[in-house]
Amino acid sequence: MIKLDYIPKTNLYMKHVEKSYSFGIDSILLANFSKMKKNKILIDIGSGSGILSLACSSYYNLSKVFSIEIQKEKANLLKENIKLNGINNIEVVNEDLNKVNFPNNFCDYIITNPPYYKKGANIKNEKEEFLLSRQEIKMNLSDIFRFSNKCLKDKGKLFMIHKPERLVDIIKESGNLKLKRIKFVQSKTFEKPVFILMEFVKNANDGLKFENPLIIYDENNNYTKEVKEINGL
Amino acid sequence: MIKLDYIPKTNLYMKHVEKSYSFGIDSILLANFSKMKKNKILIDIGSGSGILSLACSSYYNLSKVFSIEIQKEKANLLKENIKLNGINNIEVVNEDLNKVNFPNNFCDYIITNPPYYKKGANIKNEKEEFLLSRQEIKMNLSDIFRFSNKCLKDKGKLFMIHKPERLVDIIKESGNLKLKRIKFVQSKTFEKPVFILMEFVKNANDGLKFENPLIIYDENNNYTKEVKEINGL
Repeated sequence: MIKLDYIPKTNLYMKHVEKSYSFGIDSILLANFSKMKKNKILIDIGSGSGILSLACSSYYNLSKVFSIEIQKEKANLLKENIKLNGINNIEVVNEDLNKVNFPNNFCDYIITNPPYYKKGANIKNEKEEFLLSRQEIKMNLSDIFRFSNKCLKDKGKLFMIHKPERLVDIIKESGNLKLKRIKFVQSKTFEKPVFILMEFVKNANDGLKFENPLIIYDENNNYTKEVKEINGL
Repeated sequence: MIKLDYIPKTNLYMKHVEKSYSFGIDSILLANFSKMKKNKILIDIGSGSGILSLACSSYYNLSKVFSIEIQKEKANLLKENIKLNGINNIEVVNEDLNKVNFPNNFCDYIITNPPYYKKGANIKNEKEEFLLSRQEIKMNLSDIFRFSNKCLKDKGKLFMIHKPERLVDIIKESGNLKLKRIKFVQSKTFEKPVFILMEFVKNANDGLKFENPLIIYDENNNYTKEVKEINGL
């Protein structure tokens, strides 16, 4: 029997892989932080088995989603998830981001939950599958911003989640993609942030807006109201 | 009769000026966020009547403080405050930062509570005194980082408080001054930050550490424990 993971606030499911995971809370937070208009084109960079592609396609009624994923197994799993849900507007691109040949200025939105750590960072993962997802081995911040600057329309938006510790690198690499909106995610109210949610706009004017922080747990270690809503609870 | 304002956790006082202010909570937060070793040299950029120079001199037992202040009235008030407290290690430099002729690589620390807003920003202040303190009319981020990069020793530190909305400008201007430590200040737990406290280190390696946010008020609108301690209460 196949075990399925339900994507919050959608009618969609993902195939559950033993000893792995379909998605983490970071992807759900990013899909909810993003704001997209309907009938637009989205590229999901490093889509994995497709949580962001599937969730955004459903939340925002997009006309087309391109899901770029370098790993064959994950790309195939995304294809299965697409078939499982009877979806026809998601196209899987099983290639290295740096070899993808897309037109200039053609897409409205890009979304990415990229590898958080620099290449060689001291994290223990035996499997290559995890290494590529977590370390900047095949794709780094510079690659993401270069690709986004090429493929996004003028004033197109890039939505990204990342670790707070990388904030300086992110801003220094961002170039014409101007950081316009930022939201910190904290585990608890008095703790330092664990994630940053960011919206960049291509060729925008300067001007950064901070949103209220998103707190995951209340003082009793239950989800806060905001996180319950994001999870459709 | 002269009215005096007491500087928290010191034996020092500042002359209170009618219809003005000696210092705000932002300066007190910055003086406490900064960490300095004793017998070191500090430059206070845009010192005003001297809250940061006086507080840091007292907190950290510095050997010498240079207080750069362009406005004659404020520089004179700082001189009065120095005399009032019988201090002999603070030297007032009543000049434009961009005309100050200090040696290269000679100081250990720089501290600044600079003008928060860009020149021409829409804030209403009739008096030039307030305009120079709040808008980047005579001194901007680029000036501060250029001066700091020149005067700080290798691995010397710059401590700064600023508005969160300026974070991108700050990081893009920071050059060899590497942002190493950052702390957000929030009015309340679920609200967006109102200030950022930052420590930059000249010629440091990359690597940013976030500290837990500092929350000013609790749910009953009283100061939190952390702010009470900072205020010596």
